[in-house]
Amino acid sequence: MDLIKKADIILYDRLVNPSLLSYSREDAELIYVGKAPANHYYTQEEINNKIINSVKQGKTVVRLKGGDPYLYGRGGEEALELLDKGIEFRVVPGITSVLAAASYAGIPITQRGISSSFHVFSGHDINSLDFKTISSIDGTLLFVMGLRNLQQISRKLIEHGIKKNKPAAVIHYGTTASQQVIKADLALISNNVKKAGLQSPVLIVIGDVVSLAGKLNWYQQGELAGKRIMITRSREQQFELGRRIEELGGEPFYFPTIDIKGPLINDHIR
Amino acid sequence: MDLIKKADIILYDRLVNPSLLSYSREDAELIYVGKAPANHYYTQEEINNKIINSVKQGKTVVRLKGGDPYLYGRGGEEALELLDKGIEFRVVPGITSVLAAASYAGIPITQRGISSSFHVFSGHDINSLDFKTISSIDGTLLFVMGLRNLQQISRKLIEHGIKKNKPAAVIHYGTTASQQVIKADLALISNNVKKAGLQSPVLIVIGDVVSLAGKLNWYQQGELAGKRIMITRSREQQFELGRRIEELGGEPFYFPTIDIKGPLINDHIR
Repeated sequence: MDLIKKADIILYDRLVNPSLLSYSREDAELIYVGKAPANHYYTQEEINNKIINSVKQGKTVVRLKGGDPYLYGRGGEEALELLDKGIEFRVVPGITSVLAAASYAGIPITQRGISSSFHVFSGHDINSLDFKTISSIDGTLLFVMGLRNLQQISRKLIEHGIKKNKPAAVIHYGTTASQQVIKADLALISNNVKKAGLQSPVLIVIGDVVSLAGKLNWYQQGELAGKRIMITRSREQQFELGRRIEELGGEPFYFPTIDIKGPLINDHIR
Repeated sequence: MDLIKKADIILYDRLVNPSLLSYSREDAELIYVGKAPANHYYTQEEINNKIINSVKQGKTVVRLKGGDPYLYGRGGEEALELLDKGIEFRVVPGITSVLAAASYAGIPITQRGISSSFHVFSGHDINSLDFKTISSIDGTLLFVMGLRNLQQISRKLIEHGIKKNKPAAVIHYGTTASQQVIKADLALISNNVKKAGLQSPVLIVIGDVVSLAGKLNWYQQGELAGKRIMITRSREQQFELGRRIEELGGEPFYFPTIDIKGPLINDHIR
Protein backbone atom coordinates (compact mmCIF):
# COMPACT_ATOMS: atom_id res chain seq x y z
CA MET A 1 0.00 0.00 0.00
CA ASP A 2 2.86 2.31 0.82
CA LEU A 3 4.43 1.45 -2.50
CA ILE A 4 1.17 2.21 -4.31
CA LYS A 5 1.07 5.63 -2.65
CA LYS A 6 4.54 6.41 -3.97
CA ALA A 7 4.26 5.13 -7.51
CA ASP A 8 4.47 7.36 -10.57
CA ILE A 9 3.12 4.56 -12.75
CA ILE A 10 0.99 1.55 -11.82
CA LEU A 11 0.49 -1.30 -14.26
CA TYR A 12 -2.38 -3.42 -13.01
CA ASP A 13 -4.09 -6.66 -13.92
CA ARG A 14 -7.67 -7.77 -14.34
CA LEU A 15 -8.09 -9.41 -10.96
CA VAL A 16 -6.68 -6.56 -8.89
CA ASN A 17 -9.07 -5.23 -6.26
CA PRO A 18 -9.95 -1.76 -7.60
CA SER A 19 -10.03 -0.29 -4.11
CA LEU A 20 -6.24 -0.70 -4.00
CA LEU A 21 -5.94 1.82 -6.82
CA SER A 22 -7.73 4.41 -4.70
CA TYR A 23 -4.53 4.68 -2.67
CA SER A 24 -2.57 5.92 -5.65
CA ARG A 25 -1.40 9.49 -6.01
CA GLU A 26 -3.79 11.68 -7.94
CA ASP A 27 -1.20 12.36 -10.61
CA ALA A 28 -0.09 8.74 -10.93
CA GLU A 29 -0.50 7.09 -14.33
CA LEU A 30 -2.71 3.99 -14.07
CA ILE A 31 -2.34 1.52 -16.92
CA TYR A 32 -4.59 -1.48 -17.32
CA VAL A 33 -2.58 -4.36 -18.77
CA GLY A 34 -5.01 -7.12 -17.84
CA LYS A 35 -5.51 -10.18 -19.91
CA ALA A 36 -8.99 -11.52 -20.39
CA PRO A 37 -8.92 -15.05 -21.83
CA ALA A 38 -8.40 -14.83 -25.59
CA ASN A 39 -8.09 -11.06 -25.46
CA HIS A 40 -4.61 -9.83 -24.58
CA TYR A 41 -4.44 -6.08 -24.24
CA TYR A 42 -0.70 -5.96 -23.70
CA THR A 43 1.80 -8.68 -24.51
CA GLN A 44 4.20 -9.71 -21.78
CA GLU A 45 6.97 -8.09 -23.80
CA GLU A 46 5.08 -4.80 -24.01
CA ILE A 47 4.54 -4.85 -20.25
CA ASN A 48 8.22 -5.55 -19.60
CA ASN A 49 9.28 -2.78 -21.97
CA LYS A 50 6.90 -0.26 -20.42
CA ILE A 51 8.31 -1.02 -16.96
CA ILE A 52 11.92 -0.85 -18.08
CA ASN A 53 11.53 2.37 -20.06
CA SER A 54 9.64 4.10 -17.25
CA VAL A 55 12.27 3.18 -14.69
CA LYS A 56 14.99 4.43 -17.02
CA GLN A 57 13.14 7.77 -17.10
CA GLY A 58 13.55 7.88 -13.33
CA LYS A 59 10.01 6.86 -12.49
CA THR A 60 8.86 4.60 -9.68
CA VAL A 61 6.82 1.77 -11.14
CA VAL A 62 4.44 -0.58 -9.33
CA ARG A 63 3.42 -3.73 -11.15
CA LEU A 64 0.21 -4.65 -9.35
CA LYS A 65 -0.98 -8.21 -9.71
CA GLY A 66 -4.01 -9.96 -8.27
CA GLY A 67 -3.06 -12.53 -5.64
CA ASP A 68 0.60 -13.46 -5.31
CA PRO A 69 3.03 -12.49 -8.08
CA TYR A 70 4.93 -15.78 -7.81
CA LEU A 71 1.86 -18.01 -8.10
CA TYR A 72 0.77 -18.23 -11.70
CA GLY A 73 1.44 -14.52 -11.92
CA ARG A 74 4.51 -14.61 -14.15
CA GLY A 75 6.15 -12.51 -11.46
CA GLY A 76 9.30 -14.61 -11.75
CA GLU A 77 9.57 -13.92 -15.45
CA GLU A 78 9.10 -10.19 -15.02
CA ALA A 79 11.62 -10.09 -12.18
CA LEU A 80 14.23 -11.96 -14.22
CA GLU A 81 13.73 -9.51 -17.06
CA LEU A 82 14.32 -6.56 -14.71
CA LEU A 83 17.39 -8.25 -13.31
CA ASP A 84 18.68 -8.79 -16.82
CA LYS A 85 18.33 -5.06 -17.52
CA GLY A 86 19.96 -4.11 -14.23
CA ILE A 87 16.83 -2.62 -12.71
CA GLU A 88 16.32 -2.71 -8.96
CA PHE A 89 13.12 -4.28 -7.71
CA ARG A 90 11.44 -5.81 -4.71
CA VAL A 91 8.68 -8.39 -4.66
CA VAL A 92 5.79 -8.04 -2.22
CA PRO A 93 4.00 -11.32 -1.60
CA GLY A 94 0.22 -11.24 -1.74
CA ILE A 95 -2.60 -13.36 -0.43
CA THR A 96 -3.07 -15.79 -3.26
CA SER A 97 -6.61 -16.13 -4.51
CA VAL A 98 -6.21 -19.88 -4.08
CA LEU A 99 -6.17 -19.59 -0.31
CA ALA A 100 -8.37 -16.51 0.06
CA ALA A 101 -11.19 -17.86 -2.11
CA ALA A 102 -11.23 -21.18 -0.26
CA SER A 103 -11.22 -19.36 3.08
CA TYR A 104 -14.13 -17.11 2.14
CA ALA A 105 -16.05 -20.14 0.89
CA GLY A 106 -15.61 -21.69 4.36
CA ILE A 107 -13.07 -24.33 3.31
CA PRO A 108 -10.02 -24.79 5.55
CA ILE A 109 -7.43 -26.15 3.13
CA THR A 110 -5.74 -28.17 5.84
CA GLN A 111 -7.56 -29.59 8.83
CA ARG A 112 -6.16 -31.93 11.44
CA GLY A 113 -7.41 -35.44 10.85
CA ILE A 114 -8.80 -34.60 7.40
CA SER A 115 -6.04 -33.13 5.27
CA SER A 116 -2.44 -32.33 6.11
CA SER A 117 -1.24 -31.40 2.63
CA PHE A 118 -2.48 -29.35 -0.31
CA HIS A 119 -1.64 -29.34 -3.99
CA VAL A 120 -2.16 -26.53 -6.43
CA PHE A 121 -2.23 -27.07 -10.19
CA SER A 122 -2.84 -24.98 -13.24
CA GLY A 123 -5.96 -26.35 -14.91
CA HIS A 124 -5.22 -24.42 -18.07
CA ASP A 125 -3.19 -27.04 -19.91
CA ILE A 126 -4.16 -30.43 -18.55
CA ASN A 127 -2.19 -32.45 -21.06
CA SER A 128 0.92 -31.81 -19.00
CA LEU A 129 -0.72 -33.16 -15.82
CA ASP A 130 0.00 -36.67 -14.59
CA PHE A 131 -3.45 -37.71 -13.37
CA LYS A 132 -2.24 -41.09 -12.18
CA THR A 133 0.04 -39.44 -9.60
CA ILE A 134 -2.44 -36.67 -8.76
CA SER A 135 -5.14 -39.25 -8.02
CA SER A 136 -2.86 -41.03 -5.54
CA ILE A 137 -2.26 -37.86 -3.54
CA ASP A 138 -3.82 -37.84 -0.09
CA GLY A 139 -4.58 -34.16 0.44
CA THR A 140 -6.62 -31.22 -0.80
CA LEU A 141 -6.40 -30.70 -4.57
CA LEU A 142 -6.83 -27.20 -6.01
CA PHE A 143 -6.95 -26.14 -9.64
CA VAL A 144 -6.74 -22.58 -10.87
CA MET A 145 -7.74 -21.54 -14.40
CA GLY A 146 -9.58 -24.83 -14.78
CA LEU A 147 -13.17 -24.00 -15.66
CA ARG A 148 -12.88 -24.92 -19.32
CA ASN A 149 -11.35 -28.27 -18.43
CA LEU A 150 -13.45 -29.07 -15.38
CA GLN A 151 -15.28 -31.96 -16.97
CA GLN A 152 -12.06 -33.60 -18.14
CA ILE A 153 -10.31 -33.01 -14.82
CA SER A 154 -13.06 -34.68 -12.80
CA ARG A 155 -13.42 -37.52 -15.30
CA LYS A 156 -9.69 -38.27 -15.29
CA LEU A 157 -9.42 -38.16 -11.50
CA ILE A 158 -12.28 -40.67 -11.21
CA GLU A 159 -10.76 -42.89 -13.92
CA HIS A 160 -7.56 -43.01 -11.87
CA GLY A 161 -9.27 -44.01 -8.67
CA ILE A 162 -10.65 -40.98 -6.82
CA LYS A 163 -14.12 -41.78 -5.49
CA LYS A 164 -17.09 -40.44 -7.42
CA ASN A 165 -18.53 -38.95 -4.24
CA LYS A 166 -15.37 -37.10 -3.19
CA PRO A 167 -16.58 -33.62 -2.12
CA ALA A 168 -15.77 -30.88 -4.65
CA ALA A 169 -16.43 -27.16 -4.87
CA VAL A 170 -16.08 -24.55 -7.56
CA ILE A 171 -15.73 -20.98 -6.34
CA HIS A 172 -16.39 -18.11 -8.71
CA TYR A 173 -14.83 -14.73 -7.90
CA GLY A 174 -14.03 -15.66 -4.32
CA THR A 175 -13.87 -12.93 -1.62
CA THR A 176 -16.04 -10.54 -3.66
CA ALA A 177 -19.75 -9.80 -3.61
CA SER A 178 -19.96 -11.81 -6.82
CA GLN A 179 -18.71 -14.90 -5.00
CA GLN A 180 -20.66 -18.03 -5.95
CA VAL A 181 -19.89 -21.48 -4.61
CA ILE A 182 -21.15 -24.68 -6.19
CA LYS A 183 -20.61 -27.85 -4.16
CA ALA A 184 -21.22 -31.39 -5.37
CA ASP A 185 -19.77 -34.85 -5.55
CA LEU A 186 -16.80 -34.96 -7.92
CA ALA A 187 -18.82 -36.94 -10.48
CA LEU A 188 -21.52 -34.26 -10.60
CA ILE A 189 -19.61 -31.04 -10.13
CA SER A 190 -19.03 -30.28 -13.80
CA ASN A 191 -22.70 -30.58 -14.71
CA ASN A 192 -23.83 -28.53 -11.74
CA VAL A 193 -21.37 -25.77 -12.56
CA LYS A 194 -22.59 -25.74 -16.14
CA LYS A 195 -26.22 -25.54 -15.01
CA ALA A 196 -25.38 -22.63 -12.71
CA GLY A 197 -23.68 -20.87 -15.62
CA LEU A 198 -20.47 -20.03 -13.72
CA GLN A 199 -17.88 -18.05 -15.65
CA SER A 200 -14.12 -17.59 -15.11
CA PRO A 201 -12.33 -16.95 -12.87
CA VAL A 202 -12.95 -19.97 -10.70
CA LEU A 203 -11.05 -22.02 -8.16
CA ILE A 204 -11.70 -25.78 -8.09
CA VAL A 205 -11.29 -27.51 -4.70
CA ILE A 206 -11.45 -31.29 -4.34
CA GLY A 207 -11.14 -33.05 -1.00
CA ASP A 208 -12.87 -33.97 2.24
CA VAL A 209 -12.32 -30.48 3.69
CA VAL A 210 -15.00 -29.25 1.29
CA SER A 211 -17.58 -30.93 3.51
CA LEU A 212 -16.85 -28.26 6.17
CA ALA A 213 -17.86 -25.44 3.82
CA GLY A 214 -21.53 -25.62 4.78
CA LYS A 215 -20.62 -24.86 8.38
CA LEU A 216 -17.86 -22.30 8.03
CA ASN A 217 -19.17 -20.04 5.27
CA TRP A 218 -19.66 -17.00 7.47
CA TYR A 219 -18.97 -14.70 4.51
CA GLN A 220 -22.15 -15.51 2.63
CA GLN A 221 -24.30 -15.24 5.75
CA GLY A 222 -23.76 -11.52 6.48
CA GLU A 223 -26.65 -9.11 6.07
CA LEU A 224 -25.03 -7.47 3.06
CA ALA A 225 -23.74 -10.71 1.52
CA GLY A 226 -23.59 -10.61 -2.24
CA LYS A 227 -24.09 -6.85 -2.33
CA ARG A 228 -21.67 -4.47 -3.97
CA ILE A 229 -22.13 -1.00 -2.56
CA MET A 230 -20.81 2.19 -4.09
CA ILE A 231 -19.36 4.74 -1.72
CA THR A 232 -19.28 8.28 -3.03
CA ARG A 233 -17.66 9.96 -0.05
CA SER A 234 -14.31 11.68 -0.21
CA ARG A 235 -11.17 9.57 -0.07
CA GLU A 236 -10.60 10.38 3.57
CA GLN A 237 -14.07 9.43 4.72
CA GLN A 238 -14.76 6.40 2.58
CA PHE A 239 -12.75 3.73 4.36
CA GLU A 240 -14.59 3.73 7.67
CA LEU A 241 -17.89 3.15 5.88
CA GLY A 242 -16.25 0.58 3.61
CA ARG A 243 -15.03 -1.42 6.58
CA ARG A 244 -18.51 -1.55 8.05
CA ILE A 245 -19.89 -2.82 4.76
CA GLU A 246 -17.20 -5.53 4.69
CA GLU A 247 -18.06 -6.57 8.22
CA LEU A 248 -21.60 -7.32 7.10
CA GLY A 249 -20.35 -9.40 4.17
CA GLY A 250 -20.77 -6.75 1.48
CA GLU A 251 -18.18 -5.43 -0.92
CA PRO A 252 -17.47 -1.70 -0.91
CA PHE A 253 -16.75 -0.04 -4.21
CA TYR A 254 -15.03 3.30 -3.85
CA PHE A 255 -16.07 6.03 -6.22
CA PRO A 256 -15.23 9.36 -4.63
CA THR A 257 -17.41 12.13 -6.06
CA ILE A 258 -16.94 14.57 -3.20
CA ASP A 259 -13.67 16.13 -2.21
CA ILE A 260 -13.51 18.28 0.88
CA LYS A 261 -10.79 20.94 0.83
CA GLY A 262 -9.75 23.66 3.21
CA PRO A 263 -11.35 27.08 2.64
CA LEU A 264 -9.81 29.14 -0.11
CA ILE A 265 -8.37 32.12 1.68
CA ASN A 266 -7.32 34.83 -0.69
CA ASP A 267 -6.26 38.38 -0.26
CA HIS A 268 -9.77 39.71 -0.81
CA ILE A 269 -11.15 37.77 2.14
CA ARG A 270 -8.24 38.69 4.32
CA MET B 1 -5.51 -4.43 11.16
CA ASP B 2 -8.86 -2.74 11.69
CA LEU B 3 -9.98 -5.73 13.71
CA ILE B 4 -6.84 -5.53 15.86
CA LYS B 5 -7.60 -1.87 16.55
CA LYS B 6 -11.05 -2.80 17.82
CA ALA B 7 -10.23 -5.84 19.91
CA ASP B 8 -10.71 -5.99 23.67
CA ILE B 9 -8.63 -9.16 23.85
CA ILE B 10 -5.98 -10.48 21.46
CA LEU B 11 -4.71 -14.04 21.76
CA TYR B 12 -1.55 -14.31 19.69
CA ASP B 13 0.87 -17.00 18.62
CA ARG B 14 4.62 -17.35 18.53
CA LEU B 15 5.13 -16.50 14.89
CA VAL B 16 3.00 -13.36 14.83
CA ASN B 17 4.83 -10.25 13.69
CA PRO B 18 5.06 -8.18 16.89
CA SER B 19 4.57 -4.92 14.99
CA LEU B 20 0.97 -6.01 14.40
CA LEU B 21 0.33 -5.80 18.11
CA SER B 22 1.38 -2.14 18.10
CA TYR B 23 -1.95 -1.41 16.40
CA SER B 24 -3.91 -2.66 19.39
CA ARG B 25 -5.80 -0.36 21.72
CA GLU B 26 -3.80 0.72 24.74
CA ASP B 27 -6.28 -0.93 27.10
CA ALA B 28 -6.54 -4.16 25.12
CA GLU B 29 -5.54 -7.36 26.88
CA LEU B 30 -2.76 -9.13 24.97
CA ILE B 31 -2.36 -12.82 25.76
CA TYR B 32 0.50 -14.91 24.44
CA VAL B 33 -0.73 -18.43 23.75
CA GLY B 34 2.15 -19.50 21.53
CA LYS B 35 3.47 -22.96 21.36
CA ALA B 36 7.15 -23.56 21.19
CA PRO B 37 7.96 -27.15 20.22
CA ALA B 38 7.68 -29.35 23.33
CA ASN B 39 6.59 -26.42 25.45
CA HIS B 40 2.88 -25.68 25.24
CA TYR B 41 1.84 -22.61 27.20
CA TYR B 42 -1.87 -23.01 26.59
CA THR B 43 -3.66 -26.13 25.44
CA GLN B 44 -5.96 -25.80 22.47
CA GLU B 45 -8.87 -26.36 24.85
CA GLU B 46 -7.74 -23.54 27.11
CA ILE B 47 -7.48 -21.22 24.13
CA ASN B 48 -10.95 -22.16 22.92
CA ASN B 49 -12.41 -21.67 26.40
CA LYS B 50 -10.74 -18.29 26.83
CA ILE B 51 -12.19 -17.11 23.51
CA ILE B 52 -15.66 -18.42 24.26
CA ASN B 53 -15.84 -17.03 27.77
CA SER B 54 -14.57 -13.63 26.70
CA VAL B 55 -17.11 -13.36 23.91
CA LYS B 56 -19.86 -14.38 26.30
CA GLN B 57 -18.79 -11.43 28.50
CA GLY B 58 -19.50 -9.19 25.53
CA LYS B 59 -15.87 -8.71 24.51
CA THR B 60 -14.46 -8.52 21.01
CA VAL B 61 -11.76 -11.15 20.62
CA VAL B 62 -9.08 -11.37 17.95
CA ARG B 63 -7.28 -14.68 17.58
CA LEU B 64 -4.08 -13.64 15.85
CA LYS B 65 -2.12 -16.36 14.09
CA GLY B 66 1.09 -16.21 12.11
CA GLY B 67 0.50 -16.87 8.42
CA ASP B 68 -2.88 -18.15 7.33
CA PRO B 69 -5.25 -19.56 9.94
CA TYR B 70 -6.42 -22.33 7.63
CA LEU B 71 -2.92 -23.57 6.75
CA TYR B 72 -1.56 -25.68 9.57
CA GLY B 73 -2.99 -23.08 11.92
CA ARG B 74 -5.79 -25.15 13.43
CA GLY B 75 -8.05 -22.26 12.40
CA GLY B 76 -10.63 -24.73 11.17
CA GLU B 77 -10.78 -26.45 14.53
CA GLU B 78 -11.15 -23.21 16.43
CA ALA B 79 -13.83 -21.97 14.03
CA LEU B 80 -15.82 -25.20 14.36
CA GLU B 81 -15.66 -24.90 18.13
CA LEU B 82 -17.02 -21.33 17.96
CA LEU B 83 -19.76 -22.45 15.62
CA ASP B 84 -20.66 -25.23 18.01
CA LYS B 85 -21.06 -22.70 20.81
CA GLY B 86 -23.10 -20.34 18.64
CA ILE B 87 -20.45 -17.63 18.53
CA GLU B 88 -20.21 -15.35 15.53
CA PHE B 89 -16.85 -15.13 13.82
CA ARG B 90 -15.12 -14.16 10.64
CA VAL B 91 -11.86 -15.53 9.26
CA VAL B 92 -9.30 -13.19 7.73
CA PRO B 93 -6.91 -14.98 5.39
CA GLY B 94 -3.24 -14.20 5.82
CA ILE B 95 -0.14 -14.45 3.71
CA THR B 96 1.04 -17.91 4.57
CA SER B 97 4.64 -18.18 5.62
CA VAL B 98 5.02 -20.92 3.01
CA LEU B 99 4.67 -18.46 0.16
CA ALA B 100 6.12 -15.39 1.87
CA ALA B 101 9.32 -17.12 3.00
CA ALA B 102 9.93 -18.56 -0.45
CA SER B 103 9.28 -15.18 -2.03
CA TYR B 104 11.73 -13.38 0.28
CA ALA B 105 14.31 -16.05 -0.41
CA GLY B 106 13.98 -15.28 -4.13
CA ILE B 107 12.15 -18.48 -5.06
CA PRO B 108 9.12 -18.13 -7.34
CA ILE B 109 7.06 -21.19 -6.40
CA THR B 110 5.64 -21.50 -9.89
CA GLN B 111 7.50 -20.44 -13.00
CA ARG B 112 6.46 -20.98 -16.58
CA GLY B 113 8.48 -23.79 -18.12
CA ILE B 114 9.90 -24.90 -14.76
CA SER B 115 7.04 -25.64 -12.38
CA SER B 116 3.30 -25.28 -12.85
CA SER B 117 2.19 -26.87 -9.59
CA PHE B 118 3.16 -26.79 -5.93
CA HIS B 119 2.60 -29.14 -3.04
CA VAL B 120 2.69 -28.31 0.63
CA PHE B 121 3.14 -30.97 3.30
CA SER B 122 3.50 -31.05 7.03
CA GLY B 123 6.96 -32.44 7.77
CA HIS B 124 6.04 -33.01 11.38
CA ASP B 125 4.75 -36.56 11.14
CA ILE B 126 6.33 -38.14 8.10
CA ASN B 127 5.02 -41.64 8.75
CA SER B 128 1.71 -40.56 7.27
CA LEU B 129 3.38 -39.35 4.05
CA ASP B 130 3.33 -41.49 0.90
CA PHE B 131 6.83 -40.83 -0.44
CA LYS B 132 6.28 -42.99 -3.51
CA THR B 133 3.53 -40.66 -4.72
CA ILE B 134 5.31 -37.50 -3.56
CA SER B 135 8.42 -38.48 -5.50
CA SER B 136 6.40 -38.85 -8.70
CA ILE B 137 4.99 -35.35 -8.44
CA ASP B 138 6.26 -32.95 -11.08
CA GLY B 139 6.19 -29.61 -9.26
CA THR B 140 7.63 -27.64 -6.36
CA LEU B 141 7.57 -29.54 -3.04
CA LEU B 142 7.35 -27.60 0.22
CA PHE B 143 7.50 -28.93 3.77
CA VAL B 144 6.62 -26.95 6.87
CA MET B 145 7.63 -28.04 10.37
CA GLY B 146 10.13 -30.42 8.83
CA LEU B 147 13.53 -29.53 10.28
CA ARG B 148 13.72 -32.50 12.65
CA ASN B 149 12.85 -34.90 9.81
CA LEU B 150 14.87 -33.23 7.06
CA GLN B 151 17.37 -36.02 6.71
CA GLN B 152 14.68 -38.69 6.44
CA ILE B 153 12.62 -36.61 4.02
CA SER B 154 15.50 -36.11 1.62
CA ARG B 155 16.63 -39.73 1.92
CA LYS B 156 13.16 -41.10 1.19
CA LEU B 157 12.61 -38.80 -1.76
CA ILE B 158 15.91 -39.94 -3.29
CA GLU B 159 15.10 -43.61 -2.60
CA HIS B 160 11.87 -43.15 -4.52
CA GLY B 161 13.51 -41.66 -7.55
CA ILE B 162 14.08 -37.94 -7.12
CA LYS B 163 17.52 -37.01 -8.41
CA LYS B 164 20.28 -36.48 -5.86
CA ASN B 165 21.12 -33.11 -7.40
CA LYS B 166 17.57 -31.73 -7.34
CA PRO B 167 17.93 -28.15 -6.01
CA ALA B 168 16.75 -27.73 -2.42
CA ALA B 169 16.60 -24.84 0.03
CA VAL B 170 15.90 -24.50 3.71
CA ILE B 171 14.71 -21.07 4.84
CA HIS B 172 14.92 -20.13 8.50
CA TYR B 173 12.59 -17.38 9.75
CA GLY B 174 11.75 -16.13 6.28
CA THR B 175 10.83 -12.44 5.74
CA THR B 176 12.58 -11.33 8.95
CA ALA B 177 16.03 -9.93 9.64
CA SER B 178 16.92 -13.37 11.01
CA GLN B 179 16.23 -14.93 7.63
CA GLN B 180 18.84 -17.50 6.65
CA VAL B 181 18.75 -19.53 3.46
CA ILE B 182 20.76 -22.68 2.90
CA LYS B 183 20.77 -24.04 -0.65
CA ALA B 184 22.21 -27.36 -1.76
CA ASP B 185 21.55 -30.47 -3.79
CA LEU B 186 18.87 -32.60 -2.18
CA ALA B 187 21.43 -35.24 -1.18
CA LEU B 188 23.50 -32.65 0.70
CA ILE B 189 20.92 -30.31 2.14
CA SER B 190 20.45 -32.04 5.46
CA ASN B 191 24.17 -32.03 6.27
CA ASN B 192 24.62 -28.42 5.20
CA VAL B 193 21.70 -27.30 7.34
CA LYS B 194 23.13 -29.16 10.31
CA LYS B 195 26.53 -27.55 9.77
CA ALA B 196 24.94 -24.10 9.63
CA GLY B 197 23.10 -24.84 12.87
CA LEU B 198 19.68 -23.74 11.63
CA GLN B 199 16.85 -23.92 14.17
CA SER B 200 13.07 -24.06 13.75
CA PRO B 201 11.01 -22.60 12.22
CA VAL B 202 12.10 -23.49 8.72
CA LEU B 203 10.50 -23.97 5.34
CA ILE B 204 11.92 -26.69 3.09
CA VAL B 205 11.67 -26.10 -0.68
CA ILE B 206 12.60 -28.77 -3.22
CA GLY B 207 12.44 -28.20 -6.96
CA ASP B 208 14.08 -26.62 -9.96
CA VAL B 209 12.70 -23.17 -9.08
CA VAL B 210 15.23 -23.08 -6.23
CA SER B 211 17.92 -22.49 -8.83
CA LEU B 212 16.46 -19.01 -9.42
CA ALA B 213 17.02 -18.00 -5.78
CA GLY B 214 20.55 -16.79 -6.40
CA LYS B 215 19.26 -14.27 -8.90
CA LEU B 216 16.05 -13.08 -7.28
CA ASN B 217 17.06 -12.69 -3.64
CA TRP B 218 16.70 -8.91 -3.54
CA TYR B 219 15.74 -9.06 0.13
CA GLN B 220 19.14 -10.10 1.38
CA GLN B 221 20.95 -7.56 -0.76
CA GLY B 222 19.58 -4.38 0.85
CA GLU B 223 21.91 -2.11 2.83
CA LEU B 224 20.18 -3.01 6.10
CA ALA B 225 19.74 -6.71 5.29
CA GLY B 226 19.84 -8.92 8.35
CA LYS B 227 19.54 -5.97 10.71
CA ARG B 228 16.79 -5.64 13.27
CA ILE B 229 16.39 -2.01 14.26
CA MET B 230 14.54 -0.75 17.29
CA ILE B 231 12.39 2.34 16.80
CA THR B 232 11.66 4.26 19.97
CA ARG B 233 9.52 6.99 18.48
CA SER B 234 5.88 7.51 19.41
CA ARG B 235 3.27 5.28 17.81
CA GLU B 236 2.25 7.97 15.36
CA GLN B 237 5.77 8.65 14.10
CA GLN B 238 7.23 5.20 14.04
CA PHE B 239 5.71 3.75 10.89
CA GLU B 240 7.24 6.12 8.37
CA LEU B 241 10.71 5.31 9.69
CA GLY B 242 9.82 1.60 9.83
CA ARG B 243 8.88 1.60 6.20
CA ARG B 244 12.18 3.13 5.18
CA ILE B 245 14.04 0.46 7.13
CA GLU B 246 12.02 -2.25 5.39
CA GLU B 247 12.84 -0.74 2.03
CA LEU B 248 16.51 -1.24 2.71
CA GLY B 249 15.97 -4.85 3.71
CA GLY B 250 15.99 -4.32 7.49
CA GLU B 251 13.36 -5.31 10.01
CA PRO B 252 11.87 -2.57 12.18
CA PHE B 253 11.05 -3.43 15.76
CA TYR B 254 8.63 -1.00 17.36
CA PHE B 255 9.23 -0.09 20.96
CA PRO B 256 7.58 3.27 21.60
CA THR B 257 9.21 5.03 24.56
CA ILE B 258 8.03 8.51 23.72
CA ASP B 259 4.42 9.62 23.65
CA ILE B 260 3.56 13.11 22.46
CA LYS B 261 0.37 14.54 23.93
CA GLY B 262 -1.44 17.85 23.59
CA PRO B 263 -0.56 20.51 26.21
CA LEU B 264 -2.32 20.09 29.53
CA ILE B 265 -4.53 23.11 29.79
CA ASN B 266 -6.00 23.56 33.24
CA ASP B 267 -7.84 26.33 34.93
CA HIS B 268 -4.68 27.87 36.36
CA ILE B 269 -3.19 28.42 32.96
CA ARG B 270 -6.44 29.72 31.55
